[in-house]
Amino acid sequence: MEEKGIKTLLEDVSQGKLPVEEALERLKTLPYEDIGLACIDHHRALRKGHSEVIYGEGKEVSDIIIIMEKMAAQGEKILVSRLDRSKAAKVRERFPESTFHPRAKILTLGHSNEKPAGRGTILVISAGTSDIPVAEEAAITARFMGNRVDTLFDVGVSGIHRLLAHNEDLRKASVIVVVAGMEGALPSVVGGLVECPVIAVPTSVGYGASFQGIAALLGMLNSCAAGVTVVNIDNGFGAGYAASIINRA
Amino acid sequence: MEEKGIKTLLEDVSQGKLPVEEALERLKTLPYEDIGLACIDHHRALRKGHSEVIYGEGKEVSDIIIIMEKMAAQGEKILVSRLDRSKAAKVRERFPESTFHPRAKILTLGHSNEKPAGRGTILVISAGTSDIPVAEEAAITARFMGNRVDTLFDVGVSGIHRLLAHNEDLRKASVIVVVAGMEGALPSVVGGLVECPVIAVPTSVGYGASFQGIAALLGMLNSCAAGVTVVNIDNGFGAGYAASIINRA
Amino acid sequence: MEEKGIKTLLEDVSQGKLPVEEALERLKTLPYEDIGLACIDHHRALRKGHSEVIYGEGKEVSDIIIIMEKMAAQGEKILVSRLDRSKAAKVRERFPESTFHPRAKILTLGHSNEKPAGRGTILVISAGTSDIPVAEEAAITARFMGNRVDTLFDVGVSGIHRLLAHNEDLRKASVIVVVAGMEGALPSVVGGLVECPVIAVPTSVGYGASFQGIAALLGMLNSCAAGVTVVNIDNGFGAGYAASIINRA
Amino acid sequence: MEEKGIKTLLEDVSQGKLPVEEALERLKTLPYEDIGLACIDHHRALRKGHSEVIYGEGKEVSDIIIIMEKMAAQGEKILVSRLDRSKAAKVRERFPESTFHPRAKILTLGHSNEKPAGRGTILVISAGTSDIPVAEEAAITARFMGNRVDTLFDVGVSGIHRLLAHNEDLRKASVIVVVAGMEGALPSVVGGLVECPVIAVPTSVGYGASFQGIAALLGMLNSCAAGVTVVNIDNGFGAGYAASIINRA
Amino acid sequence: MEEKGIKTLLEDVSQGKLPVEEALERLKTLPYEDIGLACIDHHRALRKGHSEVIYGEGKEVSDIIIIMEKMAAQGEKILVSRLDRSKAAKVRERFPESTFHPRAKILTLGHSNEKPAGRGTILVISAGTSDIPVAEEAAITARFMGNRVDTLFDVGVSGIHRLLAHNEDLRKASVIVVVAGMEGALPSVVGGLVECPVIAVPTSVGYGASFQGIAALLGMLNSCAAGVTVVNIDNGFGAGYAASIINRA
Amino acid sequence: MEEKGIKTLLEDVSQGKLPVEEALERLKTLPYEDIGLACIDHHRALRKGHSEVIYGEGKEVSDIIIIMEKMAAQGEKILVSRLDRSKAAKVRERFPESTFHPRAKILTLGHSNEKPAGRGTILVISAGTSDIPVAEEAAITARFMGNRVDTLFDVGVSGIHRLLAHNEDLRKASVIVVVAGMEGALPSVVGGLVECPVIAVPTSVGYGASFQGIAALLGMLNSCAAGVTVVNIDNGFGAGYAASIINRA
Amino acid sequence: MEEKGIKTLLEDVSQGKLPVEEALERLKTLPYEDIGLACIDHHRALRKGHSEVIYGEGKEVSDIIIIMEKMAAQGEKILVSRLDRSKAAKVRERFPESTFHPRAKILTLGHSNEKPAGRGTILVISAGTSDIPVAEEAAITARFMGNRVDTLFDVGVSGIHRLLAHNEDLRKASVIVVVAGMEGALPSVVGGLVECPVIAVPTSVGYGASFQGIAALLGMLNSCAAGVTVVNIDNGFGAGYAASIINRA
Amino acid sequence: MEEKGIKTLLEDVSQGKLPVEEALERLKTLPYEDIGLACIDHHRALRKGHSEVIYGEGKEVSDIIIIMEKMAAQGEKILVSRLDRSKAAKVRERFPESTFHPRAKILTLGHSNEKPAGRGTILVISAGTSDIPVAEEAAITARFMGNRVDTLFDVGVSGIHRLLAHNEDLRKASVIVVVAGMEGALPSVVGGLVECPVIAVPTSVGYGASFQGIAALLGMLNSCAAGVTVVNIDNGFGAGYAASIINRA
Repeated sequence: MEEKGIKTLLEDVSQGKLPVEEALERLKTLPYEDIGLACIDHHRALRKGHSEVIYGEGKEVSDIIIIMEKMAAQGEKILVSRLDRSKAAKVRERFPESTFHPRAKILTLGHSNEKPAGRGTILVISAGTSDIPVAEEAAITARFMGNRVDTLFDVGVSGIHRLLAHNEDLRKASVIVVVAGMEGALPSVVGGLVECPVIAVPTSVGYGASFQGIAALLGMLNSCAAGVTVVNIDNGFGAGYAASIINRA
Repeated sequence: MEEKGIKTLLEDVSQGKLPVEEALERLKTLPYEDIGLACIDHHRALRKGHSEVIYGEGKEVSDIIIIMEKMAAQGEKILVSRLDRSKAAKVRERFPESTFHPRAKILTLGHSNEKPAGRGTILVISAGTSDIPVAEEAAITARFMGNRVDTLFDVGVSGIHRLLAHNEDLRKASVIVVVAGMEGALPSVVGGLVECPVIAVPTSVGYGASFQGIAALLGMLNSCAAGVTVVNIDNGFGAGYAASIINRA
Repeated sequence: MEEKGIKTLLEDVSQGKLPVEEALERLKTLPYEDIGLACIDHHRALRKGHSEVIYGEGKEVSDIIIIMEKMAAQGEKILVSRLDRSKAAKVRERFPESTFHPRAKILTLGHSNEKPAGRGTILVISAGTSDIPVAEEAAITARFMGNRVDTLFDVGVSGIHRLLAHNEDLRKASVIVVVAGMEGALPSVVGGLVECPVIAVPTSVGYGASFQGIAALLGMLNSCAAGVTVVNIDNGFGAGYAASIINRA
Repeated sequence: MEEKGIKTLLEDVSQGKLPVEEALERLKTLPYEDIGLACIDHHRALRKGHSEVIYGEGKEVSDIIIIMEKMAAQGEKILVSRLDRSKAAKVRERFPESTFHPRAKILTLGHSNEKPAGRGTILVISAGTSDIPVAEEAAITARFMGNRVDTLFDVGVSGIHRLLAHNEDLRKASVIVVVAGMEGALPSVVGGLVECPVIAVPTSVGYGASFQGIAALLGMLNSCAAGVTVVNIDNGFGAGYAASIINRA
Repeated sequence: MEEKGIKTLLEDVSQGKLPVEEALERLKTLPYEDIGLACIDHHRALRKGHSEVIYGEGKEVSDIIIIMEKMAAQGEKILVSRLDRSKAAKVRERFPESTFHPRAKILTLGHSNEKPAGRGTILVISAGTSDIPVAEEAAITARFMGNRVDTLFDVGVSGIHRLLAHNEDLRKASVIVVVAGMEGALPSVVGGLVECPVIAVPTSVGYGASFQGIAALLGMLNSCAAGVTVVNIDNGFGAGYAASIINRA
Repeated sequence: MEEKGIKTLLEDVSQGKLPVEEALERLKTLPYEDIGLACIDHHRALRKGHSEVIYGEGKEVSDIIIIMEKMAAQGEKILVSRLDRSKAAKVRERFPESTFHPRAKILTLGHSNEKPAGRGTILVISAGTSDIPVAEEAAITARFMGNRVDTLFDVGVSGIHRLLAHNEDLRKASVIVVVAGMEGALPSVVGGLVECPVIAVPTSVGYGASFQGIAALLGMLNSCAAGVTVVNIDNGFGAGYAASIINRA
Repeated sequence: MEEKGIKTLLEDVSQGKLPVEEALERLKTLPYEDIGLACIDHHRALRKGHSEVIYGEGKEVSDIIIIMEKMAAQGEKILVSRLDRSKAAKVRERFPESTFHPRAKILTLGHSNEKPAGRGTILVISAGTSDIPVAEEAAITARFMGNRVDTLFDVGVSGIHRLLAHNEDLRKASVIVVVAGMEGALPSVVGGLVECPVIAVPTSVGYGASFQGIAALLGMLNSCAAGVTVVNIDNGFGAGYAASIINRA
Repeated sequence: MEEKGIKTLLEDVSQGKLPVEEALERLKTLPYEDIGLACIDHHRALRKGHSEVIYGEGKEVSDIIIIMEKMAAQGEKILVSRLDRSKAAKVRERFPESTFHPRAKILTLGHSNEKPAGRGTILVISAGTSDIPVAEEAAITARFMGNRVDTLFDVGVSGIHRLLAHNEDLRKASVIVVVAGMEGALPSVVGGLVECPVIAVPTSVGYGASFQGIAALLGMLNSCAAGVTVVNIDNGFGAGYAASIINRA
């Protein structure tokens, strides 16, 4: 479209409809404005197979609904993250066909029937039961982006046999998201067992010297296992997203 | 499955189809125990196409040489990281065919003539000139692991046009490693321009409130661009390694 | 007034109504007390064209109203910052002609019809939608102090083209206030594009390792772009005030 | 120049020398590459009246000399910051006409005989004697950028009368840079006395709970005096630079 | 050894001495898998004399009840920690024979009539009155695990005579748990008076620069008295558990 | 008394009533037990002229009343600190003659009619209006302990003339308590103006980078004025108490 | 003198030599300048009986000597703190009659033969042997300021009997300075034993989680013993100074 | 011995050799002074079977030798910790029969031929090769205190099979000391495998966000495995000491 706009301008110049000086003026502002804007958007649409994500926290329900309406009008699939139960109820009044995942606090609209597009399976692991909401946020995000996703919960390092019992699953995964709070040790153990990329997600689960996830975050950043990268505390969405683009690669 | 496999093996032994010694060998490699040890090593060799890495910092030169001799005896390629110039000189007396990269402080042995094995090109970007040693560490690691690697240095956010001028290179990469100190803002900008995975490496470059890389680390963890994952401060090796296994995936 | 007081004293001395010794005694205490107090207030009034600001947080509504009454009695324009909706309602019962800006949590009394006094236009930019309340606080403060103010919201670094599209506006500003949470990278990019002073305002927007604005604050303090100065987290008022006195300079 | 390039392209299209499609391709890459690059550089030169600054810390002397030669070839004035005495000696062998300021660790080349261009006088204040090197860095930077600069050292808050004695100087300044370590209280006092913009520079001077300048930095960020903005710890250059562009405004 | 064991097993299978099914069963428990799971659980049961503990915080009441039912079905004693009063009430509707300790927020089921099994007496000391809930958590945990437990509350260092008056009790203990908030100095004093192991528990009691227990935690980690080890802030359960396994040793 | 006990023991030994071995046993435990306990308590009563203080925060109203009854039975004056309004109401039902100071959250019982006992006047200063509750806590504590106390509120450093106007009061004080939040700069200025001891109290007043009083605390610890000592954040009671024992000295 | 200046001015007005308007102008600037300056300096000399202290760290030897010469010329006693051995040697070449205290790193000039002026004895206590340099800094400062000073070293809390054995000395002191590193618990114990003011000095002695004195600092700020105030880490001078002005009070 | 002194005193009283009053005087000071001092020392000697430990860091060699001579004169075994190689050489000139352990930086004097006295075997585990010095410090301390000690090095969590291969050794230990830097995850895994007490020692091994051992420390404090207690960063001595008194219990 934008490309078309520039082409039209050039054709106008070519046909003498537009003086060179005036075309120059218009071209000067174009690249930084519409072109860049539209171009990138276009690429995103073409390559990612999904549109923008709406971060629900701190947004008014009315604003969320307006944005969703604009996106839905263009036939886009929609994911709203960090949406609490009461806001979700109001959104679903307007979009009854949407699905709300209360544990992950994600609302999705436009389930694809298409088969998963990624190369392999993304495995989402949680260390404890309390880490499951963040793990679910990662899993649902990755599924929404068209991946096969398996989950494996409550396999923390204090009972290492629980993890080892699923060695087969670990080895078959193309990307693994490991979600852990407290000491955040699980990604190191998983990273030592597998060769695929491991994305570590620290959670704010814990008390006292866990400092709302800092202990887990530092543990993961200092992982002695190569191949482990880290996202922000409780950022299940970011991990699911990163796993998706790695799996698609 | 594993259980079935073991059962079949046992039945074969029971029926004399499988000699005890051979069964023992196969049990050795089955997942977990002593066995586990050998098995995993074997897998690692088979799948990664490269052996263990030697972390040089804090190790005696004599120890490094002993480990290198054992690895070299098995025909393995060797990478020693965080090796200072004086230690490297001593190692090179024993292994004159090895190569030392002084800026990245990496010593490698056994250059492969084989063509790169990864799917695409890994692009390593640095924000400033002072970040180059860490960026080189990432680039040399990724090349050592059999990838095509391009580099783009000194394209920090305070002169954003320098980055935008290489938009084409950014878009063609399969994985991008972004190395930055000070405010660590570059990964967010890059992450917003591309769709491939971005690995952010904070560096300890800066002074005052950079707190030896904490400012950059926090900036990267809080990146508003999805698809960005982070490694430890100055961990060029970790970023190069992670980029490699993503590129291989 | 105070000046008048001293003048009267001097005239009394001049006319022999007041003995030198007694005048000396009175002058000794004057400067540190009333004079100093009033003098400075007077200067402030003369030079700034506006009176004291009332910081509403933690103050009783009744106290706020008393202070406002005293100021209003002297015909001063009034700005109350950090005033929540319920307190504002009570203040407006007493001062129905006042205006409340709910997003910025600012109440103003005495809209000037006078045309803006500053040399140029102050541009207030926000990185995200959630940063708008702090940005509004800056913008309304600057307008209240008699400046032309433009705003540009939601132009964060993860979609850098949105900012670049407004390159013209950036270049025309005399001072720019940049408000950003999360990684706080926007001031560095803006600071690299313009030559005018840039005031960076970190916000507490974010989660996990944003640590209520510390990540953004550190990012801004470590900005690689020269000409960027920083105020406290969420301190929109301070940024608007500083921008005003720069624009007036 | 770049503008000329685009104009030529458009004329070629207009005259039928260049097909629309080919012109389109070339325009696509132009804005993000050469144009943006050159354009911004050009603007910087035109508007600032001075060229890039060289941050000397961590740079090889040979690299510094190469950069200086390129800049000198274009007749630019040069400022190298954070240059230690031994490096400076080597630089001066190559550029004997350069001046080295050992306390401020700044080397300058190309003293302007032109009279100061700024609107008023920049006043640089230090709280203690140990803060003088950072204060000098600010003062020399501001003078290099063409401003009248006055200094006032060792007027910290524990002897408040020393500051008050210079009340006249404070009031006459167009911008004030306040440099302080330890508790960093001086900017608040100064900010309460004057109406001009105050730029606060925390220094790493102190011991124990000063935490290398954190105490001073936090004190300045929390200043109860409006109109105070802050730069990084020990960032005299940044403060001098910001004061310059405010004074020029 | 393990290898020999497996070889013998295989030879037995080969010679028909051992049926396949039985060999499979034995192999299951040998290594680290499913087996590992059961094996470790078995050992835990045999050695500890108590089953798993349920961490109540953040768990749904319904989940807690389900887990309790499964454990109770196996005749296990049950301890639920960090259970608030309202949840406890619901649990007690289902398990009326359970006991709730409101101060310690612990619910126990299956009081043993068996006499204490540990070697000596565990002494739990608190520095202040506000530390008692955490101290009680430790004491009840240790009693639940079959130990004789004495308590000594409100004997903080600011009235050192209160502690010294109980010198006899201190000396007779086999393990001492010392619970303290604020400056957390008590473990150092106690550690200097006794020769038995001392487990220090920092609490979040305090305000201002206690930083929710960090001051006490750091104090304890830096104890100048040898023989003091530390657990997480407010982790009474962990201290009681560790004291139990030390007392049993 | 205790001395008498030992004397009796020795007399018994001397008269052959008590065998040496038994006397030895009793002497071993004496010093650390009863003696110390009673002795120290007695001294406290004799020397301080006031009894224990009750820290109300986190204590049950019923517990507070019990402790008060025991103290009141012995005719002691009572001070309960950090008592919220609702608890205070219940305490006053039982002790209608007690006085509650809602701003300082202190309840006192037993107003002394005796004239102040300290050597001079304690001056309590607050930087801002929001610091007054903490300042009142200090002032009421000092008055309760029998001192003449003056107060001076809202004289922060951003309007230094307000403080200087009270120079006379500052010089006449025997001890000064300075209460300040935000940048906590006031104690340095006061400490530079006077020669008497200055006790600095940081408050949690502020936002953003004040970090609940850390900025003020660090500022005060790094005060460049000699003679300033510091207490915990918001610890008005501790400052009032310390000022009292200094004034009494 | 200054007073004389104002008097002259008034007399001039009274005699008609000076117009009222002109007198007004001159009075406006007077109070903040010379008067305050001279007045305060004078008071300091009269009341403290000692002159300014020279902080030696970071000062050039030549600067120190110049300042000392000016002070010595006025017959003042001189104390230089934080002076290392090599600088001290150079100072002593110029001032051979000065005394250097190597452990405390203090140089003094002008020993007073006068008998101690304070009301009582200042007791300086150190917890460990490594804390002695800081304790000596406090003790020598207090002696220099004319106090009787006793010291008591290596009586830390892990061997509490060592402290209790000196109970008598503790009780007789008029002020106690307690110096401690590591967990910094000693001031709390001392504060509970005595009624006189206790000044706590944290030291940077320790390792690991002592964080260069932060653990000790936090411990002291959170002391449960009333009457304890705190100075900066390793600030022996500040503690000795504060103890002196309390003892003089 | 001390006990003998008191007994002699009592016998003298009993036999009329010592008047009661005089005995009283001597007893008054005894318990707090010599007796207390000696008494506790005596108990320590009787119960621990070893004397005081000398912390070598920061002590002069001459002081260390003096203390050693006094201890050696009483036939005590001696352990000096944190002694660097050059100091050790000087100590060994005076005590040639002493043994220096360079890796652990411990010097011991008086090797016992007696067989180990503890109940079981203490196992010291290190996660990495760089953690061995701290692990050796723990092992040598525990051996010096009369325990059987086994070691197991370089079995970190990134190659979990290395640890699991030694499952037998883990289970047989009576106490386990786990030494780990970086993410500090090993104690959690070990704690989940065994039932004996686990003492976790964080080390300062690592870089970047390991913050000199803070990451490991936090990881260990937040361990999800019950029965794990923690000592200060790099405190191998403390862990070895604590393990000894647990093993002796």
